[in-house]
Amino acid sequence: MRFIFHSSALVARSALANIVKRLDPSMMEQGITKLPFDRGLINRVLKMKAAKVNKKLKYVIVIGIGGSNLGAKAVYDAVYGSFDGLAEERYPKMLFLDTTDPEFLFAFSKFFKREIRHADQILINVISKSGTTTESVANAEWVMGWMKRRFKNVKDRFVITTDEGSKLWKLAEAQGLSRLSIPKMVGGRYSVFTAAGLFPLAAIGLDIRELCRGAREVTQRDASVSASIAFHHLEHGRTIYDHFFFHPELETLGKWVRQLVAESLGKHGKGLTPTVTIGSTDLHSVGQLLYGGPRDKFTTFVWAKKSAHDVKLPRALFFRGLVEGLPGQSAQKIMQAILHGAKKACRNESLPFSETILPDLSLRSLGGFLQCKMMETMFLGKLIKVNAFDQPAVELYKKETRRILQRE
Amino acid sequence: MRFIFHSSALVARSALANIVKRLDPSMMEQGITKLPFDRGLINRVLKMKAAKVNKKLKYVIVIGIGGSNLGAKAVYDAVYGSFDGLAEERYPKMLFLDTTDPEFLFAFSKFFKREIRHADQILINVISKSGTTTESVANAEWVMGWMKRRFKNVKDRFVITTDEGSKLWKLAEAQGLSRLSIPKMVGGRYSVFTAAGLFPLAAIGLDIRELCRGAREVTQRDASVSASIAFHHLEHGRTIYDHFFFHPELETLGKWVRQLVAESLGKHGKGLTPTVTIGSTDLHSVGQLLYGGPRDKFTTFVWAKKSAHDVKLPRALFFRGLVEGLPGQSAQKIMQAILHGAKKACRNESLPFSETILPDLSLRSLGGFLQCKMMETMFLGKLIKVNAFDQPAVELYKKETRRILQRE
Repeated sequence: MRFIFHSSALVARSALANIVKRLDPSMMEQGITKLPFDRGLINRVLKMKAAKVNKKLKYVIVIGIGGSNLGAKAVYDAVYGSFDGLAEERYPKMLFLDTTDPEFLFAFSKFFKREIRHADQILINVISKSGTTTESVANAEWVMGWMKRRFKNVKDRFVITTDEGSKLWKLAEAQGLSRLSIPKMVGGRYSVFTAAGLFPLAAIGLDIRELCRGAREVTQRDASVSASIAFHHLEHGRTIYDHFFFHPELETLGKWVRQLVAESLGKHGKGLTPTVTIGSTDLHSVGQLLYGGPRDKFTTFVWAKKSAHDVKLPRALFFRGLVEGLPGQSAQKIMQAILHGAKKACRNESLPFSETILPDLSLRSLGGFLQCKMMETMFLGKLIKVNAFDQPAVELYKKETRRILQRE
Repeated sequence: MRFIFHSSALVARSALANIVKRLDPSMMEQGITKLPFDRGLINRVLKMKAAKVNKKLKYVIVIGIGGSNLGAKAVYDAVYGSFDGLAEERYPKMLFLDTTDPEFLFAFSKFFKREIRHADQILINVISKSGTTTESVANAEWVMGWMKRRFKNVKDRFVITTDEGSKLWKLAEAQGLSRLSIPKMVGGRYSVFTAAGLFPLAAIGLDIRELCRGAREVTQRDASVSASIAFHHLEHGRTIYDHFFFHPELETLGKWVRQLVAESLGKHGKGLTPTVTIGSTDLHSVGQLLYGGPRDKFTTFVWAKKSAHDVKLPRALFFRGLVEGLPGQSAQKIMQAILHGAKKACRNESLPFSETILPDLSLRSLGGFLQCKMMETMFLGKLIKVNAFDQPAVELYKKETRRILQRE
């Protein structure tokens, strides 16, 4: 693996070794971890891309929620997303319809009217593993209605990604919509290396082979050590598992980790609560709590050794005498100083932390991170003794929602 | 107050009354809660707006981090922000430079070159209470360098908001930059109704009088009941305080609450950990953990009775037989069904929650919410017995960062 991964010296090596020993790599669910090795899958996705993506394409609309869209969104935002407001005209862009927020849908309809002149400018990817997700079906219906009122032959502009054999799968077949399948055994939160994650990323031109290459480089050893450290601290009362990303563009990647950890491990009264912190911004928000509050958190800092770009401050300052060390300083160096200051303060206060250091924020590195976190979560499931692949409590609110919708 | 505020029936009235009794309204820090009543302050802000905002203005750049920008950003995003990628050409827009992320600054410099042709198209508001915040001083320096290379007489395009008497205040005076002051006794996280929050909002054309009007309508009684409910559950082991916003456009408002709660209450080993959840999206992320995980969370649902807009699904569906109750349904009704389903499931599982129901997402309602949460936090400080106005642990990492920057 190309990561550097280590933890502060607050766990005895022997304690850690004892936990790691309990993790036999053969316990890993091979099906899920082998997805990035599946060349047939990658080829099917690229074939669909060739069929659907033309030079006129401006927007790929991803309709999906939770595990169905977070993987693609995490990678997209890491590469483009958090600067999209500042971006030049670079197409195709990706837009996400997750929930059915009326304000957002209203803004979206105005945007449609203004921006989309030909059906070929848009490609809609509806992603729902079960095929019966309320928000995603409602949004798919709404976009289909809009497309049919405006254009002819709109079916060609949809790709449906769902479980082979789901109701949606069959309906798409009967209606002649293009389909990609999510393997039965792969839950939404583990689906980033299935068509659910790979197709939208390929459609806007990202190199999914590089993403999968990075994932293939991860070893189970790395993931088991990472899981063991988090588990050790959980057993010592640190029930909040914080991922502290020192790159604002990784905030959605944080939300992907949060979903993965919360849904895989939070059950039967057990589990840890994942939180996401963004550096340096959130040091000015939750820093006081981290350093001064209850000792119920375990932090892992995630950062990349190299940025693709950098900027430098002038040598002759205008705002003189306020902060030392700034003349001619680079933004990257300033961020590093803050990060190392934050870690040093953890050490001084005996707050345990680990680090995942990526070589850069390339697709290869991002793919490795995604794969490593999925493996770590599966191992954590073994250690906590919960099934990391079900989500029994989700039905509790869905059932009530269905009842209310049926009554109306 | 115009909110409806209530909690699930899982706290005995007498227990609650006993806590409320401990909160004498005269304990409230009058200075902070009286800010929205200060017409002189509002007039100074509007006068500065009149001096700086012209018809050519396209971008207000807010340079600030943590409490210095979160209030303005929370309100801006609630009104425009989360749809900005879809927005028509509506100016002026607000852009936020918080941290010194090299990728973001690089994207920003390209954006500058492309978009800004006259100095009058841009207005830079540097906000730092202390005047010595590393990120904000670095970003101010960087933008000043860029402006000076491109335009003449750029000083006129800056407004400095800081403590009267800070080093930055004096430097701005010596250099002839326009200034607005933050009252000494008001910490960054309580500064949304000072020039820190009000000036940027006024500059892009939002009605700050309405915002302050909503804040003036909040009673201390409401805030003390709200604080007492959260405190009751904290004393029963619910150390995670979740704000569950059922509007994606309120995510930054959630981050504002998170900063307020974390920095005010997380000290001396005490405090609660604030989390932010966005409905319905995050039901598909942390829903399983909420309903099935450890019972360490207290949830407050925040939602508005009325949306400004709505959209409807077609009566004749294309995606038939997948979800019941969708034909002709409105987005607002679907969101309500999911929200009420989520609350019903909490009741079924005996998970305590409260609700803050806003009449709408107008500036008046948003102002009321901001004021209510600040009062609630001050009361929580009294109940937890911490000083809600200091942040002693923040120096721990800042000190280390300064050391590293000085060495380089």
